[in-house]
Amino acid sequence: MTKWVYPFAKGQADGRADMKELLGGKGANLAEMCALGLPVPPGFTITTEVCTYFTEHEKTYPADLKDQVNAALARVEEDMSASFGGKGGDGLLLVSVRSGARASMPGMMDTVLNLGLNDETVEILARVSGDARFAYDSYRRFIQMYGDVVLGVDHHHFEDLLEDHKDERDLTLDTDLTADDWKILVERYKEKVADQLGQPFPQDPHDQLWGAVGAVFGSWMNQRAITYRRLHHIPADWGTAVNVQAMVFGNMGDTSATGVCFTRNPATGENLFYGEYLINAQGEDVVAGIRTPQPLTILEKKTANTELPAMEETMPETFAELDGVRHRLEQHYHDMQDMEFTVQEGRLWMLQTRTGKRTVKAALKIAVDMVDEGLIDESEAVRRLDPGQMEQLLHPMLDPNAPRTLLGQGLPASPGAASGRVVFNAEDAEAWSDRGEKVILVRIETSPEDIGGMHVAQGILTTRGGMTSHAAVVARGMGKPCVSGAGGITVDYAAKTLSALGEVVREGEIITLDGATGEIMVGRVPTIEPELSGDFSRLMDWVDAIKTMGVRANAETPLDAQTARNFGAEGIGLCRTEHMFFDKERIIHIREMILAANEADRRAALANLLPYQRRDFIELFKIMDGLPVTVRLLDPPLHEFLPHGAKDVADVAKALGVSDEAIEERAKSLHEINPMLGHRGCRLGITYPEIYEMQAQAIFEACAEIIQGGGKVTPEVMIPLIATKKEFSILKAVIDHAAAQVRAEKGVALDYMVGTMIELPRAALRAGEIAAGDDGAEFFSFGTNDLTQTTFGLSRDDAGRFIQIYREKAVIENDPFVTLDREGVGELVGIGVERGRAARPGMKTGICGEHGGDPASVMFCQSVGLDYVSCSPYRVPIARLAAAQAALAQRDAKEA
Amino acid sequence: MTKWVYPFAKGQADGRADMKELLGGKGANLAEMCALGLPVPPGFTITTEVCTYFTEHEKTYPADLKDQVNAALARVEEDMSASFGGKGGDGLLLVSVRSGARASMPGMMDTVLNLGLNDETVEILARVSGDARFAYDSYRRFIQMYGDVVLGVDHHHFEDLLEDHKDERDLTLDTDLTADDWKILVERYKEKVADQLGQPFPQDPHDQLWGAVGAVFGSWMNQRAITYRRLHHIPADWGTAVNVQAMVFGNMGDTSATGVCFTRNPATGENLFYGEYLINAQGEDVVAGIRTPQPLTILEKKTANTELPAMEETMPETFAELDGVRHRLEQHYHDMQDMEFTVQEGRLWMLQTRTGKRTVKAALKIAVDMVDEGLIDESEAVRRLDPGQMEQLLHPMLDPNAPRTLLGQGLPASPGAASGRVVFNAEDAEAWSDRGEKVILVRIETSPEDIGGMHVAQGILTTRGGMTSHAAVVARGMGKPCVSGAGGITVDYAAKTLSALGEVVREGEIITLDGATGEIMVGRVPTIEPELSGDFSRLMDWVDAIKTMGVRANAETPLDAQTARNFGAEGIGLCRTEHMFFDKERIIHIREMILAANEADRRAALANLLPYQRRDFIELFKIMDGLPVTVRLLDPPLHEFLPHGAKDVADVAKALGVSDEAIEERAKSLHEINPMLGHRGCRLGITYPEIYEMQAQAIFEACAEIIQGGGKVTPEVMIPLIATKKEFSILKAVIDHAAAQVRAEKGVALDYMVGTMIELPRAALRAGEIAAGDDGAEFFSFGTNDLTQTTFGLSRDDAGRFIQIYREKAVIENDPFVTLDREGVGELVGIGVERGRAARPGMKTGICGEHGGDPASVMFCQSVGLDYVSCSPYRVPIARLAAAQAALAQRDAKEA
Repeated sequence: MTKWVYPFAKGQADGRADMKELLGGKGANLAEMCALGLPVPPGFTITTEVCTYFTEHEKTYPADLKDQVNAALARVEEDMSASFGGKGGDGLLLVSVRSGARASMPGMMDTVLNLGLNDETVEILARVSGDARFAYDSYRRFIQMYGDVVLGVDHHHFEDLLEDHKDERDLTLDTDLTADDWKILVERYKEKVADQLGQPFPQDPHDQLWGAVGAVFGSWMNQRAITYRRLHHIPADWGTAVNVQAMVFGNMGDTSATGVCFTRNPATGENLFYGEYLINAQGEDVVAGIRTPQPLTILEKKTANTELPAMEETMPETFAELDGVRHRLEQHYHDMQDMEFTVQEGRLWMLQTRTGKRTVKAALKIAVDMVDEGLIDESEAVRRLDPGQMEQLLHPMLDPNAPRTLLGQGLPASPGAASGRVVFNAEDAEAWSDRGEKVILVRIETSPEDIGGMHVAQGILTTRGGMTSHAAVVARGMGKPCVSGAGGITVDYAAKTLSALGEVVREGEIITLDGATGEIMVGRVPTIEPELSGDFSRLMDWVDAIKTMGVRANAETPLDAQTARNFGAEGIGLCRTEHMFFDKERIIHIREMILAANEADRRAALANLLPYQRRDFIELFKIMDGLPVTVRLLDPPLHEFLPHGAKDVADVAKALGVSDEAIEERAKSLHEINPMLGHRGCRLGITYPEIYEMQAQAIFEACAEIIQGGGKVTPEVMIPLIATKKEFSILKAVIDHAAAQVRAEKGVALDYMVGTMIELPRAALRAGEIAAGDDGAEFFSFGTNDLTQTTFGLSRDDAGRFIQIYREKAVIENDPFVTLDREGVGELVGIGVERGRAARPGMKTGICGEHGGDPASVMFCQSVGLDYVSCSPYRVPIARLAAAQAALAQRDAKEA
Repeated sequence: MTKWVYPFAKGQADGRADMKELLGGKGANLAEMCALGLPVPPGFTITTEVCTYFTEHEKTYPADLKDQVNAALARVEEDMSASFGGKGGDGLLLVSVRSGARASMPGMMDTVLNLGLNDETVEILARVSGDARFAYDSYRRFIQMYGDVVLGVDHHHFEDLLEDHKDERDLTLDTDLTADDWKILVERYKEKVADQLGQPFPQDPHDQLWGAVGAVFGSWMNQRAITYRRLHHIPADWGTAVNVQAMVFGNMGDTSATGVCFTRNPATGENLFYGEYLINAQGEDVVAGIRTPQPLTILEKKTANTELPAMEETMPETFAELDGVRHRLEQHYHDMQDMEFTVQEGRLWMLQTRTGKRTVKAALKIAVDMVDEGLIDESEAVRRLDPGQMEQLLHPMLDPNAPRTLLGQGLPASPGAASGRVVFNAEDAEAWSDRGEKVILVRIETSPEDIGGMHVAQGILTTRGGMTSHAAVVARGMGKPCVSGAGGITVDYAAKTLSALGEVVREGEIITLDGATGEIMVGRVPTIEPELSGDFSRLMDWVDAIKTMGVRANAETPLDAQTARNFGAEGIGLCRTEHMFFDKERIIHIREMILAANEADRRAALANLLPYQRRDFIELFKIMDGLPVTVRLLDPPLHEFLPHGAKDVADVAKALGVSDEAIEERAKSLHEINPMLGHRGCRLGITYPEIYEMQAQAIFEACAEIIQGGGKVTPEVMIPLIATKKEFSILKAVIDHAAAQVRAEKGVALDYMVGTMIELPRAALRAGEIAAGDDGAEFFSFGTNDLTQTTFGLSRDDAGRFIQIYREKAVIENDPFVTLDREGVGELVGIGVERGRAARPGMKTGICGEHGGDPASVMFCQSVGLDYVSCSPYRVPIARLAAAQAALAQRDAKEA
């Protein structure tokens, strides 16, 4: 016989806290508290399996459910010395019927209180409580709730009747109504129900009970719940449990009360009891906000500077009992709890406990404190933090108490907050910045040409492009706040204005961006600086001790590299050399190279770039001081370096001493229909080997200088966009040749590796061949941005047009450019690792796409055995934490 | 002990015809002929393994080679009763030393004749032959050849000496020189060699022999041979063999002769002996073309209308013997042979036999005739034809005898030949065509907008784009000649001229295209029509009996569909519905749809398209008459349908009653950075379900009409660009819904399938999920064009920029858009088939990329078990032949 019903009463319970799947979160914790001997109103839980049965069997129940419910109900009656239906004479049992799923779904599901009241039992309640007004108020609340939730009679019908009655009698507040008023209204409510349904309000308490149970189970499949589940990735087949529990009343006079509390402060994490309560009230009254809740403790009262008496003062004994429960529960659960309680005529009843939600800041403090208190160990502390939220700790944030005027909202593309004067192009940004002004660069969208302006800006705002647009990616790399795709804002480059909501902001006026929320505000909003020492630093030490994957950063500027080291990066996983070319004094040489008519002229232009590249590498190597540095050779198509717009063209033409037409002609000839799939990456290296030759020379000459200065450096030279082994072996020879030349010229021993990005499906499939032999790749770095683009056939730059609809229609759960698609892209990564390592045992593998900083993706990287992840500098701590959690999850899975 | 040397002499040979890998083609066939008892000058073959040894061991030989050569040489001496070096007294053995690799490499390798002559043996030769002039002429030829080939003394030195001598003596022709003249020249030749090398010309015949052998082996690695091998995909490690053979002389007077012949006519295939010979000449004289060769047979003499006496007349007995050899060899080899022979003083010697090269026409006739003659069976006949060449038989071709003036050359993008008046845009093409003119459409490159003009044109010429450019793909689909990427030709749209080689062709002037060669000619060149009955039709019947895969066509117009059926297509594998939208009266509606502001307006525009689509499908279904028709729903991004250029925009704006700006604005908003990876395929269906709804309705209403007319039709509705199962299941529901509606409205039972193109790596990987369940795909069609683009990360439209360099640097062997990349793309196809069929046993799978018509790719399709290939109509016969060969190859492999 299947057990469908789990009773709890008198310190005994059939359920346990770890039975959430079967009993839901509320039911499991009620059973646990009961078994702990805490004062829980007796009751029972109908399991989630009944919900599944109910859904699958046209709203019917298993045959033996009724007997089990009746047996459990009898135990409650016995425990409460009261009768459901009031037949026994000595007491009346009323019950609450509440839903309780495995995951919390606040407000999504239905609840019925005071169940068991009818025309007869209301009189018993009046007699037992000695308060007819209370009894009839309870009855009319029950009819309204039951009518609404179970019978489908909309609550406005009841509210209208109440208002009419108040008008008739010239009454204002509910508290003005007497027992007789409620009696009259109870009759009218029942008439309304009979009128709406064509049959009377059910009087049999058992009918009422089954009606309510069916309504709760039915609510699992209502539209509100379905939508909520979809948004929160909760499977429909989990089902909800139903909790039937003896009613206790916090509204039976001044010795009764109800409240919610946290075992620690959920905002700051401080180990102080924290909560609110109301005297002579039911639970809904605390939530509804009609009466101002009072503080729980005297300390709170002082902090909040209120005159309202604390529970610690008004009910010192009950408070002490509650404080005891608080300590008991934390000791038992080893985590901060969020509890609900009711005091009925001086007696404390616990109605709920669950793990309390908290801010990131509080989560960090609680985790570290609990380690110090011996409640949890360091691994558990590491498990407790949400890496996705942690980024909030790393950036300045807006002062939550500061006033703000919202101008618009875009995507939260790169976290942090910043204020500055609006400028509309990169040149202006640099010019204003040179004058000492802080600026926000506002563009419709950004291109590599804007890098200089982005560097000097405090933050970036674009009106087009998604979370992985150029602006978003670069800003995250720089650790600058960015709001992208703010479609509601119109930019007029000519007039140098932006406008939204009828408001026009001109060049030079100040705006504030919140990159964590995507909000754009007029004027300056004060910010709060992050605090990275103390608890943060202690936690990160534990993280590093646990994680098994390395965490590197994607960085090319000294500033980024230094930031990354400060955040604990263990090397550079991706140095995009092309970013080194966009500087004003450099781009002219690369343009010269592009416009060159032959190899000799190309070489001459490249020779001018060599000193810059060498200097950049020397700086990077110095900052990284012996840690590995992966340098990716030139990747983007050459047309990205050409000027856009007549003025730019004219400037460049003048500087290079060629005609405007020559530049336009060249740009036209370089135009590509699908640049993502075009003449870029190693294809440039194959067609113009002199480019990679120069870059390799710069790398190795930089190494030589470091080594001659007594330093250590092991560059990992990375060839992008490999599709075939032959491409790799041709270019590896070019690099090896450059190394040999530098070695011979400078007389130093060079230690280096040559590897490739695996960013095309073909490269993943041919990984074995690409890794094999003396001319094979010595390391792989999975470029999951491009691998996602090619595996899905989806352009990052163009996906914005329909990805929103894809999410709405639930075609995809996550943006695959944010969280790695395990099933498709992930299989290719797995194949790449496996075949690569089969050909070259122990081969070093990593990931350098945007996914390197995404916790879910980091988990995947651990599962396929990558050696490291690499991400933008500001995501390094997040990746470290995610890597530690991934290591713990893997360890747990092995032990299981 | 390794056997390095394979002798043949006196009807006995150690080698055989099937030992080509070891003995090379020439050596293996010499051995075979010898063993057959045919008159072959005795000799021996040094194996290709020695070549490999030689290459790998710094030009040295295996230790025991010398002894084996000496032993073999002794057998030759014995057989010829002659002495190498003339020591024996009774006769002089001279030898030829020739290369002979596994594959024929005509003219690529070196040969030395008359080897063994020196100052002493020349006198013996004079005495034995009774002809001092012959002896010294032979000696000086030997010195020149050996000097050039072995010693590296350039032949111009010898030619200069000969010219000087002729001038001195006032002689004109070589035949004017006497024995004394040659004696003088022999001395001068030897002096020149000594002068150039600092040492005398080698006199020891054995030194000469080893010198020549080394030169032949060395020639395997010379630049000429390396280049040839690269162009013909011949691996370097095959090596060449060396054939040493007793010299026989066709230049010993009027009873001597030399010639080449074919067992059948290599141009027409007729079963007639065919060849040329020269009396008193050596082999080189026939090839050199100094003397006019004479016909072999009297019939040939008559056909060629020449007075030169036939061998059948001048040497009737020897001719009869040669004719006997001809029959013997054909009976033995079961194939047409290409032979070389020499007659020395009335005695016939066979110097070579090999499978004769032939025209496609001849190949077809010979194969069919040989089946009738019982020489080969039908399978063998099918094996004999090269599918790649067969396309020549299907199109009109230029009369090979007609004069022509070449204007330029491009890529042979679509076969066939056509003449017409030059026009420079699609509108002009249609206007001229309406006037009854035949036109050639000349564009820099074509776009979907040009389809109308391409349809009416006789042929298409573009100056940009490759073998898979828009023009090339569409033209092949239409079966029209196309020359693409003719970079040497300049088009001036404004002036309406094209110019090349200093010549200017104006609009309205006539040019001729040869799409099989890529040639462009001024004026009209007459063409010959193809002959598809008779032998062709018999062979194709055998093909159909053998092949196991179906062959379908990619077609959407009635003309294409009819062509495809005529060529034996077994259904339509890809009907690209968007091609149905480009017609003038239709494109306006699709533009209306694109410009629509909301769903209602979009539906209104689509409703206008519905009748056109329905009519198209009815026509297609009628032509296909019960055969399967795969209809792909709308695939390209919407911006492809928008007008380009101010005039077009204005026209469309006027027609639609909107402003020019509205259209430009919409075009701008639809612009994509990587349209290949953008908002297209099923992504359009997800965002605008009404489009696919209309298309499905049109398909099913067409079915209903066919069925109500008593016909049969089973459409296969294909959803393009699926990356996830969810996309598929959402859109399958849309299609099923449309079917149910039509079914209900028309009251007919509809039989149809819904499947998908697998054209993204993710779809191949997730094939199992996509095929599974009631909402899964019922068939797969591999769209290998896009699958290649995404797997390689390579845009077809942009690859032209560097693919040439990739081929030159041997990064890729074949253009992956022409021949399917087995290792990368092929693995994904294999995975797709396997996982799809695991989820849906027996699932129908096919291929509809350009690869469907490529023989090598068809072979691959057979190997992974596809049910059918689909290709452009004109490639259907090629695909059928390739499919039959693939089936045979698979059968052979299984039997082996």
